[in-house]
Amino acid sequence: MGLERTRFEMTKKHHKKTFEKATKEGRMDADFMPFCRYIAKTKNYFTSSCCAGRIALIGLGKEEVKKESAFHRKWHRKVKFSEVKEGLDSFDGEILWFKQEPFILHLGTDTLENAKKILVVCEKLGIKRSGIKVAKEGKFIVEMLGTQNIMVPIKEKNVCVETDFLKYLVKKANEKFEKNQELVKELTKEVKKELF
Amino acid sequence: MGLERTRFEMTKKHHKKTFEKATKEGRMDADFMPFCRYIAKTKNYFTSSCCAGRIALIGLGKEEVKKESAFHRKWHRKVKFSEVKEGLDSFDGEILWFKQEPFILHLGTDTLENAKKILVVCEKLGIKRSGIKVAKEGKFIVEMLGTQNIMVPIKEKNVCVETDFLKYLVKKANEKFEKNQELVKELTKEVKKELF
Repeated sequence: MGLERTRFEMTKKHHKKTFEKATKEGRMDADFMPFCRYIAKTKNYFTSSCCAGRIALIGLGKEEVKKESAFHRKWHRKVKFSEVKEGLDSFDGEILWFKQEPFILHLGTDTLENAKKILVVCEKLGIKRSGIKVAKEGKFIVEMLGTQNIMVPIKEKNVCVETDFLKYLVKKANEKFEKNQELVKELTKEVKKELF
Repeated sequence: MGLERTRFEMTKKHHKKTFEKATKEGRMDADFMPFCRYIAKTKNYFTSSCCAGRIALIGLGKEEVKKESAFHRKWHRKVKFSEVKEGLDSFDGEILWFKQEPFILHLGTDTLENAKKILVVCEKLGIKRSGIKVAKEGKFIVEMLGTQNIMVPIKEKNVCVETDFLKYLVKKANEKFEKNQELVKELTKEVKKELF
């Protein structure tokens, strides 16, 4: 076995363990379980991290930079208007954002050739935000993001989104959350056909 | 000269011509000009496409799929509230989205090693949405997206965003548009230091 394959085997083993631990501790997103379980059994692929999508209220400081940002509320499921409203009313920071974020996945493999196979799957499913992020001998990682997205600031100083419009945003976010779940299912199906 | 290098030289030449044509015809985003001009002079890199960022009103059909989407209004600059309001009022399709989109850039090179250098620049500048999209012998393309983003549906059937809140959204979009422009400048500076 070459050095590259040895590195790959070690990486795959490590991530399999991490996945099993996360599963035991109930930290795995249910929507990604069939996908990750399948990948763990393949010969040439591993998952290093994933989030199946979420709806969140994120508080930002004056500068609105990442390091100041904090989850005010976070749901890995569809939400009720009352939950979002409660989060909005109880926020007393600088700026509050409402976000519906699509899935994000890091799918690793051993060679550039296999990484390209992942990209082909992404292209087929219209997952435009995908690309090779890590390219080392024996360790290639493709990052991919779903296509469903809402990102909007809803509260800042004397400005606040109207109740009716927020209701609409919650409805749209839930619709998009569902579409995102469907895409995760499609991805799982496609990967089972194309990656071994 | 190897086959890979020949392929690269041809690709670079092609994109240099396309760039020069776009410049002559006034189709190049001014904010990306210094960047593209520099890259055109390097030995190992080329730009295949770029957009320096924009604020847009996008109309979607019932299914909200990409192929049904159409620019209702589009600005490659900061906008006035009155412009957006006019666009909102005159829209009579299914769903209207307000979007502030960051820059997108496709930066090509000859080898995987050089593509990785591009990824290092992205990481340094916090350009998280970046990755190798094309990986062929002699032709590697890194896609990168800026970090500033607003995406929100604002009109659908009997729902419409309130005037005051839309004013706020326009203000935020303009702020983010500026931040995006700063990032393009930083990227240009960094690239001049790191890529030749």
